[in-house]
Amino acid sequence: MSLAIVSPGKKPDVWIKEFKALAPELSIEVYPEINEPEKVEYVFLWQHPEGILSDFPNLKLISSMGAGVDHILRDKSIPSHIPIVRIVDEKLTFSMTNYVVMGVLNYHRRTPRFQMNQTRKVWDMSMPELDVTVGVMGVGALGKDVMDKLNYMGFPVVGFGFSEKNDFEFPYYTKDKLEEFLKEVNVLVCLLPLTPDTENILNADLFSKCNPNTYLINVARGRHLVEDDLIESLESGQLSGAMLDVYREEPLPENHPFWENWKITMTPHIASVTNPQAAAPQVIENITRIRANKELINVVNRSKGY
Amino acid sequence: MSLAIVSPGKKPDVWIKEFKALAPELSIEVYPEINEPEKVEYVFLWQHPEGILSDFPNLKLISSMGAGVDHILRDKSIPSHIPIVRIVDEKLTFSMTNYVVMGVLNYHRRTPRFQMNQTRKVWDMSMPELDVTVGVMGVGALGKDVMDKLNYMGFPVVGFGFSEKNDFEFPYYTKDKLEEFLKEVNVLVCLLPLTPDTENILNADLFSKCNPNTYLINVARGRHLVEDDLIESLESGQLSGAMLDVYREEPLPENHPFWENWKITMTPHIASVTNPQAAAPQVIENITRIRANKELINVVNRSKGY
Repeated sequence: MSLAIVSPGKKPDVWIKEFKALAPELSIEVYPEINEPEKVEYVFLWQHPEGILSDFPNLKLISSMGAGVDHILRDKSIPSHIPIVRIVDEKLTFSMTNYVVMGVLNYHRRTPRFQMNQTRKVWDMSMPELDVTVGVMGVGALGKDVMDKLNYMGFPVVGFGFSEKNDFEFPYYTKDKLEEFLKEVNVLVCLLPLTPDTENILNADLFSKCNPNTYLINVARGRHLVEDDLIESLESGQLSGAMLDVYREEPLPENHPFWENWKITMTPHIASVTNPQAAAPQVIENITRIRANKELINVVNRSKGY
Repeated sequence: MSLAIVSPGKKPDVWIKEFKALAPELSIEVYPEINEPEKVEYVFLWQHPEGILSDFPNLKLISSMGAGVDHILRDKSIPSHIPIVRIVDEKLTFSMTNYVVMGVLNYHRRTPRFQMNQTRKVWDMSMPELDVTVGVMGVGALGKDVMDKLNYMGFPVVGFGFSEKNDFEFPYYTKDKLEEFLKEVNVLVCLLPLTPDTENILNADLFSKCNPNTYLINVARGRHLVEDDLIESLESGQLSGAMLDVYREEPLPENHPFWENWKITMTPHIASVTNPQAAAPQVIENITRIRANKELINVVNRSKGY
């Protein structure tokens, strides 16, 4: 039996090193050079070519290379009885939260304006802070941590999600209360999982319900955002700016209008990067558990999509 | 009896409004138009002209318009029996901490590099984070809060100060251990009070003891920093960059080299701005207490300098 790594365009070397250190006996194959597909019992996936898993007749476990699994679930050819697990990594949470906090602070403290004033040699002390209330869409492990840290720093926070929550420690709205949620906030953070419910949720209709000058931070998936609608809402002033880490097409094509839009701050999908040292033990742990017929960790609920 | 506001170059209007609302009976004079100096019992000061307080023979209380009192203590003509009080404001702490956290995060997450890449339309995901350990010089109310918040966000923090501390909750070094302190950290935050001990403390000698590529954040006073030494240490690469909110001369003159130094991020002394609504009640409270012969709040220890 073997583990196949399928991550076109991403070098698997660091992962192989970690896996070998943890499980020297495990044989590892790397797509597309799979010599013995019938021996592959476990796959480790990032953006795999659709349909390819049917090459592995004895597949028992699907591991995502990250926290997200939308890239796996969109492949409808995957048999439903094979369990899918994902990475849950404190370091992912640390990075994601600190990226979002940075975005909130740069908006709150008007960084672009002070940068502009520095280039112009202008000393202007007026209005050094904007009051912000941060709305977090998606209150899973990442969203909850963002809310907790911002609250600790003294910012009001409000949550939004698709599931009912009992005893949630912050104000929380479910999907039928989207409009009320948006009225509470002027910084909007998207940390939703990508599901049929949430795809394209950041669109002109949603933006029109925001408070004027709302600031958007999208760190979830590019397909949450209708990109043309963002550009229009920035032009109209309905949104005051955006910080984006994810895009419908990655790498973002050179002719994409986001690059030159001065109201958009861009990073290249680095808000939270899976750390092989932290994540590899979880992959090996699940392989050990499935061999021993034990309950798996970090299992994905396919009907929820995360 | 009356309160004299002495704050050349700063409009006192918002303060007068707050004082009048809290103590309608209090008569207020504004320097330089003081009609009855012998009636002035309380002064409220920001950068007052040295020696001027001897115009008020019946002075009983000196209030600083901010958290700092170095602008008062440098006037050696002030009689030592008159108590000096300062502003202690949670909002000041909120703003200062969030400014420093923003500086740490923009360094940690390499904001200038990603901004540069956006202007060049470069998609480069490599090395998205720098590991940081934050050293905070000055662990009073503000410094301690910065350490607490950064620690809560997952960053290692180390403190430095001039007084011995028992049971301090983070690693802490006193002045004879400056070198050991600097070796622990790669982001250096100055939040020291300005005293004869700390003036010019950020100088070439200190920078030479820092780890290479240390990042400096000065939010205390301009006179902590020997500005030419900073420029040299940035050129040599001993320091990797600096975020500055305070300067030896403010507003910073147009011909000052900081404006055009791409390794320096500048703001115009706005890290933490005293909020009249929060601070005015403390001023009035102390006036009430001194009239009733009660113990004052937020009294400055002149020998310590804060």
